[in-house]
Amino acid sequence: MANFAMHITLDPAETDYVQSILQHKVIKKNTVLLNSGDVSRYVYFVNRGCLRLYHTDSTGLEHNLSFSPENWWSSDIASFSGQRPAFYSISALEDSDVFCLSYDALETLYIQIPKFERFFRILTQNGFSMYQRRMTSNLSKPAEERYRHFQKKYPYLEQRITQKHIASYLGITPVFLSMLRRRT
Amino acid sequence: MANFAMHITLDPAETDYVQSILQHKVIKKNTVLLNSGDVSRYVYFVNRGCLRLYHTDSTGLEHNLSFSPENWWSSDIASFSGQRPAFYSISALEDSDVFCLSYDALETLYIQIPKFERFFRILTQNGFSMYQRRMTSNLSKPAEERYRHFQKKYPYLEQRITQKHIASYLGITPVFLSMLRRRT
Repeated sequence: MANFAMHITLDPAETDYVQSILQHKVIKKNTVLLNSGDVSRYVYFVNRGCLRLYHTDSTGLEHNLSFSPENWWSSDIASFSGQRPAFYSISALEDSDVFCLSYDALETLYIQIPKFERFFRILTQNGFSMYQRRMTSNLSKPAEERYRHFQKKYPYLEQRITQKHIASYLGITPVFLSMLRRRT
Repeated sequence: MANFAMHITLDPAETDYVQSILQHKVIKKNTVLLNSGDVSRYVYFVNRGCLRLYHTDSTGLEHNLSFSPENWWSSDIASFSGQRPAFYSISALEDSDVFCLSYDALETLYIQIPKFERFFRILTQNGFSMYQRRMTSNLSKPAEERYRHFQKKYPYLEQRITQKHIASYLGITPVFLSMLRRRT
């Protein structure tokens, strides 16, 4: 609920309603919440643990797009909002507990409590801006600077996930990443 | 108005209201609409011509993040939505005419006609998704494939803007781009 309070104010009845539509799920490490090709039925809010969003290319190689530790949201937004097959997959990097908000529940929520349009507009704007900056960073900055930015954006995450996953997020090899780590 | 109709339905009074707050601007090629460091006061909708959004790095080099030809929006979303100094600049690649929507007018619009929350949520979701896919493409695809994707995403734009700008958008050198063009 604190996450919603960042952008909108809810009265007790609205808070109760939202709590009633959120499904709580406790999942083990490596659980797959969304398989690419399936239609994404949920957006996820991470209460504990960490999810990753990734694309598997035609050679079977996985490319991490984002990590969602505590208090982050995760979603293949095109699949979820258009209810079409997902390009991305979502799985758990650690034992996690997450809140799941289904497409139908969210569409009803927009009608019942329209200020959630505002909440998700602002949340999406922030994500949009984050990707704009990351895209520019990838076009203009060396890997070392992007690695430092990763450390700043996801503090403490580095100790929790494998180098392989971080390297994939940065678009570099694990060998190059470990060289960067020794250098900094 | 047709652009709004993609995601929401407006009655005649609402249409009149929106038209009254949109400012129409005719600008010459190379006009700068937003300077990085300034606070972005407007989002732009391109009626004719083409805008580009770019970042100037510490060495003075410009990195194009996006092009906005007819019927596209352009904005440094972090600067506009947070009313803080812009990381990006926006300028006209061609003689253009654009509709400008100011921050204050948009905030008032959200209160007067809340369904615009919905419109801009969906618009932002689409942009968010576009950047997700482009980010993954940059992490996983060779330049040639990214160039083909550019051609598909912006049909006809290639004939209108210089190779220098397209190369900067792709994060490759103009020499490498002209090699790719000969190859395809």
